[in-house]
Amino acid sequence: MEYEEPLFFEVMSYAQEADRDVVDMVSGNPDWGSPDGISEGLHEYADLGGDDFQYAPSAGLRELREEIAARRGVDAERVIVANGGGAANYLAMGRALERGSGSEVVLTDPVYPYYPGKTTMLGGEQSFVPVADDGTLDPADVRATASDDTAAIVVNTPNNPTGAVYGEETMRELVAVAEECDAILVSDEVYDHFVLDGAFTSALSFDSEHVIVTNSYSKTHAITGFRVGYTILPREHVPAVRARNMLTNVSTTRPGQYAVLHALRETSPDYHAENRDRLRERVQTFTTALDAAGAEYTEPDGAFYVLAKFPDYPGTLEHTRELIDEAGVAGMPGSAFGESRSEWFRFALVTPRVETAAERLADYFG
Amino acid sequence: MEYEEPLFFEVMSYAQEADRDVVDMVSGNPDWGSPDGISEGLHEYADLGGDDFQYAPSAGLRELREEIAARRGVDAERVIVANGGGAANYLAMGRALERGSGSEVVLTDPVYPYYPGKTTMLGGEQSFVPVADDGTLDPADVRATASDDTAAIVVNTPNNPTGAVYGEETMRELVAVAEECDAILVSDEVYDHFVLDGAFTSALSFDSEHVIVTNSYSKTHAITGFRVGYTILPREHVPAVRARNMLTNVSTTRPGQYAVLHALRETSPDYHAENRDRLRERVQTFTTALDAAGAEYTEPDGAFYVLAKFPDYPGTLEHTRELIDEAGVAGMPGSAFGESRSEWFRFALVTPRVETAAERLADYFG
Repeated sequence: MEYEEPLFFEVMSYAQEADRDVVDMVSGNPDWGSPDGISEGLHEYADLGGDDFQYAPSAGLRELREEIAARRGVDAERVIVANGGGAANYLAMGRALERGSGSEVVLTDPVYPYYPGKTTMLGGEQSFVPVADDGTLDPADVRATASDDTAAIVVNTPNNPTGAVYGEETMRELVAVAEECDAILVSDEVYDHFVLDGAFTSALSFDSEHVIVTNSYSKTHAITGFRVGYTILPREHVPAVRARNMLTNVSTTRPGQYAVLHALRETSPDYHAENRDRLRERVQTFTTALDAAGAEYTEPDGAFYVLAKFPDYPGTLEHTRELIDEAGVAGMPGSAFGESRSEWFRFALVTPRVETAAERLADYFG
Repeated sequence: MEYEEPLFFEVMSYAQEADRDVVDMVSGNPDWGSPDGISEGLHEYADLGGDDFQYAPSAGLRELREEIAARRGVDAERVIVANGGGAANYLAMGRALERGSGSEVVLTDPVYPYYPGKTTMLGGEQSFVPVADDGTLDPADVRATASDDTAAIVVNTPNNPTGAVYGEETMRELVAVAEECDAILVSDEVYDHFVLDGAFTSALSFDSEHVIVTNSYSKTHAITGFRVGYTILPREHVPAVRARNMLTNVSTTRPGQYAVLHALRETSPDYHAENRDRLRERVQTFTTALDAAGAEYTEPDGAFYVLAKFPDYPGTLEHTRELIDEAGVAGMPGSAFGESRSEWFRFALVTPRVETAAERLADYFG
């Protein structure tokens, strides 16, 4: 085995088994509850039974694909429903790597750790492009790293862990680099409903045969456990990705697809706006405490996370455990996200106890 | 793309779009309904919300893994819950191929078409061992085909499409061949509750570091759409398979896992016994009609299928479409299952209209 299991579950277990009260800022599990349509949809589905409990079409329930397509302004044939954003990225990266157009996958540093793991599992080679301290990605750096051997450029916007939201010009240039190298730009946009400041530009805005967008309902509908996500593909890649999806998973869980479809139809935009407002308040509370703790941090424009760096206290796994045991706050070690942030910690703001965590950190480091 | 999308969905679509009434004998979707525990479990889960809607542990809900482990007589650490039998086989075959112990996957002919597709997708080479006309697999033939380059031997017992149930001696010998070649015997046992005649021997009966068993609740609980299956692994392979599962799917759908756990606890063995009785009756009805149609066929000892061969009417995709349009019966072309059965059709007995289909075939060929 040449690929590693990401650390998330390990750190969460350590925090759960601690002898003291710990505020969990490890997981990306929304704590604000799903919209009512999810539970209603599941109840409705549970009563159907029979044929409705059997295989959904491999690419997804037709009505769900059509709903997604209508919202994203694409043809439903280009939508393939997948087992969460994780499987959507697996499908996209698998496709990029199997085309015979190179074996390199260009990633950012810091990086969401599943991407390098998937790259190696799928037989690709990792390359990393450092981002600026504020999380900004310079497409010129991507161009300098990419080559004829580049199969994919994988980005996440809004970004986990930096909180950056890549602007329109950045996205346009990334698409151009992918086209120049005959690579696929895989744009993972699972946090697209959580832009806290500024505008969001999906890679779908650009009409290109070199873009695959991945997304999921895990975060937007607070159902990380359901495993319902999707890819939107250029037409030429649809048959191969359908086949890979079929040969890996056959199809995506039907109760989850049914519940998501119901919730998409029933959920008011207010639900998403309230979640953004709540996150903005938490960012404010948490960064105020980080100031008191003398920490450096990135103010996120989107997603759920704050990267923070405490004086003389690098973000190692050892220190992560120490913070759990001594401060009662569980974050993720920055080293889990690549070399450039090994001094930092990532804190997820998806707990109602952000204020408690903030006070504990201010006390511990203050 | 060097791997093919199995034909099932294509044939089902053709049958659904036909201008006439068609009895669907294509899919392996049980028609007898799930046990009540499935629907009850889903309702119970739908009311939980919050944290219970978030990620299950990547390897599966602890209580479900323990329930599976207790039933199968293994340690829970050896159980990994997967997105259906399809993903369980993907994980097992992926593990077998990545060990550096060869790239050949030995399959039977006829074969369940997902196995050769997965083999190619995972970078392996397919080899086929023909089975006898009655579906019996001779381990000596497997030994003659296997070599130092063999990474995996993949078998399905009870078998789709032949209906064979491999006996204890066969299974023991297959394990021995896997050990001799440093290969993994992947034993896909998703039809283990559907042994119609004779005894069932799981590959788990043999204490070997060279056996991975895969299984699923799709057939046993009539929930092919839920996507809940599992692998049971030797300890040494657990970390790598956990990592592959995490990097492909993150985790398996939690509503489905919860419903399966509830159903496992609530379902009487009578449910499974009644399903077997029903299948036995259908086999009787169907094979009686095949006699009237002058067909050859295999009498299944297990699973849901009958392979049949009509005089001067090979089981091509063209003839499959013709039978749909002219006889109103949809089967699968034998050619989908390998070269040895290209003269045959596979009929799935998971429809209440077996008798109608039988009469139609007897009329058409009689």
